[in-house]
Amino acid sequence: MKANQERIEKHIKALSRYTATPNEGTTRLTYSEEDLQARIYIKEQMEAYGLEVREDGLGNIFGKLEGEKKDAPSVIVGSHFDSVPHGGDYDGPAGVIAGLEIAALFQDNQVKPVYPLEIIAMIEEEGSRFGGGLMGSRGIAGYLSKDDVQETKDKDGISVPEAMKKIGLDPSLEVKRDPETIKAFLEMHIEQGPILEEEQISVGVVESIVGLTQLEVTIDGKAGHAGTTPMDRRSDALVAAANIISKLPQIAMEEGEGAVTTVGRHQVFPNGANVIPDKVVFSVDIRSSKEAHVKNVVQKVKNLVRSWEANGIQTAVEQSLYMQPKELNKKIRSILEASCAQLGTSFINMHSGAGHDAMVLSDITDVGLIFVPSKDGLSHCPEEWTAIHELAAGIEVLYETALKLTEKS
Amino acid sequence: MKANQERIEKHIKALSRYTATPNEGTTRLTYSEEDLQARIYIKEQMEAYGLEVREDGLGNIFGKLEGEKKDAPSVIVGSHFDSVPHGGDYDGPAGVIAGLEIAALFQDNQVKPVYPLEIIAMIEEEGSRFGGGLMGSRGIAGYLSKDDVQETKDKDGISVPEAMKKIGLDPSLEVKRDPETIKAFLEMHIEQGPILEEEQISVGVVESIVGLTQLEVTIDGKAGHAGTTPMDRRSDALVAAANIISKLPQIAMEEGEGAVTTVGRHQVFPNGANVIPDKVVFSVDIRSSKEAHVKNVVQKVKNLVRSWEANGIQTAVEQSLYMQPKELNKKIRSILEASCAQLGTSFINMHSGAGHDAMVLSDITDVGLIFVPSKDGLSHCPEEWTAIHELAAGIEVLYETALKLTEKS
Repeated sequence: MKANQERIEKHIKALSRYTATPNEGTTRLTYSEEDLQARIYIKEQMEAYGLEVREDGLGNIFGKLEGEKKDAPSVIVGSHFDSVPHGGDYDGPAGVIAGLEIAALFQDNQVKPVYPLEIIAMIEEEGSRFGGGLMGSRGIAGYLSKDDVQETKDKDGISVPEAMKKIGLDPSLEVKRDPETIKAFLEMHIEQGPILEEEQISVGVVESIVGLTQLEVTIDGKAGHAGTTPMDRRSDALVAAANIISKLPQIAMEEGEGAVTTVGRHQVFPNGANVIPDKVVFSVDIRSSKEAHVKNVVQKVKNLVRSWEANGIQTAVEQSLYMQPKELNKKIRSILEASCAQLGTSFINMHSGAGHDAMVLSDITDVGLIFVPSKDGLSHCPEEWTAIHELAAGIEVLYETALKLTEKS
Repeated sequence: MKANQERIEKHIKALSRYTATPNEGTTRLTYSEEDLQARIYIKEQMEAYGLEVREDGLGNIFGKLEGEKKDAPSVIVGSHFDSVPHGGDYDGPAGVIAGLEIAALFQDNQVKPVYPLEIIAMIEEEGSRFGGGLMGSRGIAGYLSKDDVQETKDKDGISVPEAMKKIGLDPSLEVKRDPETIKAFLEMHIEQGPILEEEQISVGVVESIVGLTQLEVTIDGKAGHAGTTPMDRRSDALVAAANIISKLPQIAMEEGEGAVTTVGRHQVFPNGANVIPDKVVFSVDIRSSKEAHVKNVVQKVKNLVRSWEANGIQTAVEQSLYMQPKELNKKIRSILEASCAQLGTSFINMHSGAGHDAMVLSDITDVGLIFVPSKDGLSHCPEEWTAIHELAAGIEVLYETALKLTEKS
């Protein structure tokens, strides 16, 4: 079964328009005006493909095609629709559009599944507004209490429920999903690395996902005037932070085995040119395919940060996210591989260096994750790109797999 | 003549209320809502003290008491009324209030000066909104062309004229002041250092002001996904910036002679926790009482920044402000000292580690600058504090000096 490339392109173009930074990449923060516009679009498409649409208490969007079997668990297909600031049009949306196109193909072909098909568009995978990341899937998996959600605030102090209400969402609705209602979860994502393109392979069937953690480091010092405070009487929070950050790459490289550390978010207070900074807050993202490496690096980073506690400098490290390395479900992997073989689509097995909603949902259901090529391996930037025919090839594999899992082929 | 401490306290309290960060210090950025509120207050007080009020094309506020002599140059008294983010209630306002109190004393005592008395409240000394600093006095001294002003933008891309219009100011008015219209400029400022308090001295008569420069450093790298980009294939702008910033204190300390370097403003782009930063922009503030030291440090900082140009990292350094060390007018210093002696007020001669509007205006007129004590030497923070009686002692010295300069005693 061929996917409709025109329809796929229409969706990509439509979603790419909902950005806070036109001509400078996609910036679609969760519960923003652009989230609302994308949300309206996604729901309209779901309805057009005959799905019953609802949003949960975090604003995750579900579109359901009922199955023949009464009260049976759903095969869910989708990804997230938020972005990093100045990101691309594919990280997230490619997988949401895969879901939409599969629903459209079910409709085109008048497929009546035995098990329900559900298309999902999740929020806040990137953590760009509320930190941590994977919030939509963590909510669905039951990892977030009402209190957690209430206490989660963006950098302006706006809580999740407050932000939701501003775009008309209802935070009082249920979020946690009973695992008994899910048969499987399928996600298509761009690779965000160079391998598929370099090897000219259409699809990566993901075997495992790296473990990752995020630390939030706070350095407190003492403000003072840039001109009247001698160098030896300063407690400069930024100088301490800079010393720490400059040494993180070495920690990752000494650990080896592909361990990576990244400081992506970094804020300086009060941030005036002639004021010695009294506070710096920064994130440290740590990843490795082996749990022991993640834990080693975390310990070394904590020791390094603590070593700067002197002369009026105080430090704190919070672990805002921890995900173990995950092996994905073997049975679904074999169905994905069989679908590739059936369609004559080239594939390889891969590891994922990025965390995905699939990783979280693998705690509560059987999960399959495939990658499609990323041009030049780029992502999280405006140059992020995957050809429409490459998206279509991945979607066709996912469609065949969804047919098998919904037991209608 | 005694200053009215109740009136001084009323002004301090009133201006401290115009802050964007209540209970977290004074944050009064130029042309903000809080600027407008403070501006209305200052103009009302000037009018109440019988001054003729006007604003120039940068929004500097002038209140003039005409002198007996026709078209004679003015003795100007005042300071700035903007603040750093989360700053204190005294840096700037103390000197504006000194001007207001002197005008009030002229009114109380029905002084009819020979030369006009002008009270001034200047904008953007701190550079917290538009960078660089000393903008109000630089405009008055004629250092800013209409084009400069048009091209000066805040971090959100809002230009000076746009921001002025939003609070009802008229950027088409003249800014540069003919030096022939100024007889002298007097400024009172808090010390922002510990010396007066430690030595229990009421007034510092400033002999010279440090030279200072501000650099804006831009580091460009390449964005990428935190999980899928190996450490050895990164061009991480923040790691480069952190390495540079970590080495700046050493440059200042090696230079010695009180040279200081401060990175106060620092922004990371795109600033997402799982994105390798592709750009960092930061300020470097460099000061020393000797010009050769300022120039040495600038050169060393430029060399250090350039040394990071490799592996996809590009750098640029712009010098946004340069002020030579300045000796202040000897005649006015002797009048200030004579006024101290006459009032029985203790004083010492001092150097200023901070740049002040007095420094800029010393290019176009005779200038006198006095310091009053700063509790614990603190400034640019909510804890900044000077006792009302200490402010009054400084104001009395400035009042006597203004009487002598306006040739009415």
